[in-house]
Amino acid sequence: MTGDHTPAALIDAEIREQPAVWRRLLDSDQFAALAGQILDRRPRMVLLAARGSSDHAALYAKYLLEVILELPVGLVSPSTMTAYGAKPDLRDVLFFAISQSGGSPDLVRSAQVARSQGALTVAVTNNPGSALAEATELHADVLAGRELAVAATKTYTAQLLAMYLLVDRMRGGSGAAAALPDLADELLAREPQVAEQAQRYRFAQRLVTTARGYSYPTAREAALKLMETSYLSAQAFSGADLMHGPLAIIDAHVPVLVVVADGPGGAAMRPVLPRLTGAGADVFTVGTADAVAESTSGIILPEGVPEELSPVLEILPFQQLARHLAVARGENPDAPRGLRKVTETT
Amino acid sequence: MTGDHTPAALIDAEIREQPAVWRRLLDSDQFAALAGQILDRRPRMVLLAARGSSDHAALYAKYLLEVILELPVGLVSPSTMTAYGAKPDLRDVLFFAISQSGGSPDLVRSAQVARSQGALTVAVTNNPGSALAEATELHADVLAGRELAVAATKTYTAQLLAMYLLVDRMRGGSGAAAALPDLADELLAREPQVAEQAQRYRFAQRLVTTARGYSYPTAREAALKLMETSYLSAQAFSGADLMHGPLAIIDAHVPVLVVVADGPGGAAMRPVLPRLTGAGADVFTVGTADAVAESTSGIILPEGVPEELSPVLEILPFQQLARHLAVARGENPDAPRGLRKVTETT
Repeated sequence: MTGDHTPAALIDAEIREQPAVWRRLLDSDQFAALAGQILDRRPRMVLLAARGSSDHAALYAKYLLEVILELPVGLVSPSTMTAYGAKPDLRDVLFFAISQSGGSPDLVRSAQVARSQGALTVAVTNNPGSALAEATELHADVLAGRELAVAATKTYTAQLLAMYLLVDRMRGGSGAAAALPDLADELLAREPQVAEQAQRYRFAQRLVTTARGYSYPTAREAALKLMETSYLSAQAFSGADLMHGPLAIIDAHVPVLVVVADGPGGAAMRPVLPRLTGAGADVFTVGTADAVAESTSGIILPEGVPEELSPVLEILPFQQLARHLAVARGENPDAPRGLRKVTETT
Repeated sequence: MTGDHTPAALIDAEIREQPAVWRRLLDSDQFAALAGQILDRRPRMVLLAARGSSDHAALYAKYLLEVILELPVGLVSPSTMTAYGAKPDLRDVLFFAISQSGGSPDLVRSAQVARSQGALTVAVTNNPGSALAEATELHADVLAGRELAVAATKTYTAQLLAMYLLVDRMRGGSGAAAALPDLADELLAREPQVAEQAQRYRFAQRLVTTARGYSYPTAREAALKLMETSYLSAQAFSGADLMHGPLAIIDAHVPVLVVVADGPGGAAMRPVLPRLTGAGADVFTVGTADAVAESTSGIILPEGVPEELSPVLEILPFQQLARHLAVARGENPDAPRGLRKVTETT
């Protein structure tokens, strides 16, 4: 660790470093080469394996691959290939394993089985020398630099952007991501407003996050950050699933954090907002100006970002919220209790 | 609704009816016919679409299809085919849409798109006259009879068993499920012990459920039942994901409900139990005698049930727990606030 023991010093530095990490990724030529190698194999379907924050990056990639490349996509339950020893026929399958450290034994094993069963395997990690990167045919480096805080921040957005740049290259390249670092600087500057919001949740024991489509992984990752750093119960639901049962838990005592991007997923969330406010919920929205106006409070996202890229930006205020809420509650978000940086599940 | 207004009268009757529903399914000849029609098409991969409790049945089916038939499987995000209009190439794909009512518009639309894109489509519903059953080429009837309580119980286990019987037929038929109804009668008779456990959670605001492999859908469904009927925040984690972050929220104030079946998934949960008790958690386990002995309290599952069938049984004590906890908290589990029986998401 570093010599600086100020609580939150590590996570603060890593949150602020994100625009610089994204600039490195935007300048990298690895995605053109990888896209070519993948397209040569003409995959018919895609499987994604990941755990924790990386699993939310995998879920984002699932939307990208399904919507932009129109490929059927599944998220792997690693235990089927490890604990249960399944040997599926994976010819024509593109298999991604996404992991910050590249060190989780069950992911390594899943990638080995996928490769031996005929899949084209690609590791997406922050460590080109990792066991996972060695187990797969191809490797994408998320170029985030060493991450010291236990809660992933810069590696998460680097995973999202790396998957976007790869998929974007596979369709020919739109260049839409070039504006993201400057927009991130603008969004990160709203930290004082987020810090104030954190005070509002000082005594909350549980909260709910919700979104639809591309932004649903943001809701999942926001909930995980809040759990990891502030130890409250934060539950993420797709806006559609929330209406199928969990809406019953929503009342004035359960704050709801909502993401409403500008696009079809955000539009599908709009009918959910009045259901939440109608149930008496305190609603904090990160999203379009219209959606924030319908909420108790919120942060307006920069305009003009395609919905497919919005998740790279949307998570930033939630990372700041988790950091400020932890400190407000007397916790150190750099070193949550009970957690280690590399989790060894088998 | 019925003329009987006793709180919990509907859910009580439907929980107890489950062995009879399973006997009807075991006697049905529809699965042999369906298995033949599916095998004729030689599917290379499977997609499953569902929402709410049915999504947990889909997750169970994902394990069955991956482990027993060794097919790659994905859970569909319906919005990619509805909100985002994706038209994936689904030749060689077997597409299941699972829904109690068969009436959710986004599932119907997803099934229509899947069928027009070349998939073999199968609806699994409790209503052969539903829009979903009409939209697909094939239909499996879960034969649960009309379900009146808003929280699904008998339709959930009927979905699990129907998917098991179909997959079991596709591999030739093991007959292992025949013992389930008698074992269910035995397990349901432990209701007094479950009712006592419910008193322990009278003032809990949040809890966590966890399991791995085949039993993970049980943890998800148990959490949903508790949220729907008792309005507490219940979060489900795979035992592996729990170690990747959410373990931080576990302490003496967060009860943990664990499922440990007799098999590889249950074995993979065993290292998680000491981590939970080590964090001071109050652990209630439904599972093997060994696992219950390591926990604060629990219900021992009948012996001799293959792990792949265990989820059909495991959920029963959690259904009873949700019912008793709701009544202990002064709620009516038959009609949770804010919910309707058919949820119309688009």
